[in-house]
Amino acid sequence: MIDQIEIIGLAAAVLTTASFVPQVYKAWTQKATKDISLTMYLSFFMGVILWLIYGIQIGSLSIILANSVTALLVLIVILLKLKYK
Amino acid sequence: MIDQIEIIGLAAAVLTTASFVPQVYKAWTQKATKDISLTMYLSFFMGVILWLIYGIQIGSLSIILANSVTALLVLIVILLKLKYK
Repeated sequence: MIDQIEIIGLAAAVLTTASFVPQVYKAWTQKATKDISLTMYLSFFMGVILWLIYGIQIGSLSIILANSVTALLVLIVILLKLKYK
Repeated sequence: MIDQIEIIGLAAAVLTTASFVPQVYKAWTQKATKDISLTMYLSFFMGVILWLIYGIQIGSLSIILANSVTALLVLIVILLKLKYK
């Protein structure tokens, strides 16, 4: 059963995870990533992997789902950054 | 007492939160944010506020600390984006 607190977590997860979609789309279509910080995305990626481990350990569905998809989207931004730097 | 699981959460929190510092620095010093998606940062900001509420409700120190500082840094990126668009 998903309780009320977990619904807030899931909404948070959807917003922070989905937020990377417009960034991926922008970088992909404009082929420009000059103003994006690679250091930010590398640090963020490592952090997301740790959040995933944390989510598994505390059994938080929101944290697990959010960080799995976020890791993938952030990795795409990193690859686009390396391609269009 | 902070247990081992919470240490992983805190490391995750430090990485994902601190990651926005180089982005703020880059946007601030280069006065350029063209390649940054405003939609991403607005969605991310709303998500971070919900993560903060979630963290308070499940009593996760890592989530509370991370998202308080992240909200502030993300807000700075949004203001820089609006200034140097």
